[in-house]
Amino acid sequence: MDRERFAKQISFILEADQEKNIMRQTHLSNHGRNENDAEHAWHMALMAYLLKEYANEDIDISKVMIMCLIHDIVEIDAGDTYAYDAEGLKTQKEREEKAKERIFGLLPDDQKEMMTALFDEFEAFETPESCFAHAMDNFQPFLLNDSNEGGDWQEHGVSISQVLRRQTQSAKGSKEITDYVLEKLEEHVEKGHIKDDRK
Amino acid sequence: MDRERFAKQISFILEADQEKNIMRQTHLSNHGRNENDAEHAWHMALMAYLLKEYANEDIDISKVMIMCLIHDIVEIDAGDTYAYDAEGLKTQKEREEKAKERIFGLLPDDQKEMMTALFDEFEAFETPESCFAHAMDNFQPFLLNDSNEGGDWQEHGVSISQVLRRQTQSAKGSKEITDYVLEKLEEHVEKGHIKDDRK
Repeated sequence: MDRERFAKQISFILEADQEKNIMRQTHLSNHGRNENDAEHAWHMALMAYLLKEYANEDIDISKVMIMCLIHDIVEIDAGDTYAYDAEGLKTQKEREEKAKERIFGLLPDDQKEMMTALFDEFEAFETPESCFAHAMDNFQPFLLNDSNEGGDWQEHGVSISQVLRRQTQSAKGSKEITDYVLEKLEEHVEKGHIKDDRK
Repeated sequence: MDRERFAKQISFILEADQEKNIMRQTHLSNHGRNENDAEHAWHMALMAYLLKEYANEDIDISKVMIMCLIHDIVEIDAGDTYAYDAEGLKTQKEREEKAKERIFGLLPDDQKEMMTALFDEFEAFETPESCFAHAMDNFQPFLLNDSNEGGDWQEHGVSISQVLRRQTQSAKGSKEITDYVLEKLEEHVEKGHIKDDRK
C-alpha cells in the first residue's frame, strides 16, 4: 500500500462525510424531516439498480450508481440549489465548478480525473448512463413528494409548467417512468397541490 | 410497463426511505450528530468504489456497491444492533430474518429473490464481494471514530479485544486496510480512547 495515496483517499472520504449535513428542500415520506444529500444519493443509487429495466437504452449500472452517489458532492461547498430557485440557478454552475476542483482535488490524481469525468458526464446529460441517473435525480424527490400529498410543491408554490420542464427532461433517461410521473402530476394539479398556469 | 410490477417496486423504494430514520451509534466527523443507516450505506458504497484496489481478490464492484446499499435494510424492522452490544446480538439474527422476508417481500418475486440472495451473500461473509463489503462496513465507522478521537469507543467503554475481534475480520476483504487500522488502533489504546484488556 502506498500510504501517501491512501491518505489522500481517506482525506476525500472524510470530506465527503459533510454531504450528510447538506439539507435539501425535499421531505422524507410520512411527512418527515428534510432530507440530506447523502440520503438522497443513497436512495437514487438503490432506485437505479431496481428500476434499470425502464432505462431507454442499455446502461452500465455500476457507472450509473457511482454517478448517483457523487452527483451532489459539490454542494458541500456550493450548497443545495432548489430545482425551482431561479436566482440560485444563475450562479450554480460557477459555484459548483470551484467546489469540484477543490473536493475531487483531495484524491490522488488518477482518481481525481476519474471522478471529475464521471461528474462531468452526469452534468452533460448526454450518455445513456447520465440520462438515467438524471431520471432518478428527478424521480426520487417526486416519489417522496407524491407520497406526502405534494407538500414540497405546495410549500414553494410551484406551478405545473415548472414541474413539467424538469420532469420531461427525465424522458431522455426513461420514457416509461416519465409517462407515469406525468399522469400522477395531473392528479396533483387536480387536487390543487400544484398551480395550473397553463390556462 | 407492467404497472402492477412498478407499483411493487415503488412500494419497496418508499419503504426503504425509513432507513434514513434508523440511527446508529457512530457519530459524523467533526463530532457531529449520530449517523443513520442510509448515510452509512451511501458512504460505504462510495468508499468501496474508491478503495477497490485494496481488495484481496478481484471483485465485481457493482455487486459490492449494491450489497453496501442494502446490507442494513432489515434494521427498518429490527433496529440497529451496536457491534459491541452482546445482548442485542443474541436475538439479532431472528429479528433480521423476519424483517428480510417482509421488506424484500414488497418487491416483485424475481427482485425479491435477487435482493435476498445479495443480502444473504453479504451475511454469509464468504465471497470476495461480501468480504470487501464487510471490510467497508467496519472501516467506515472506524474512519469517523478515528477522526473524532475515538469518541464512540470512549462513550461505550469499548476494549481493544472487542475492537480487534471485529476489525481483524476485515482482513478477509482487505489485508492492507486492516493493517492500517490495526496500527491506528494501537495509537488509540495509547491515548486511552480504547481500554487495553490484553494485560
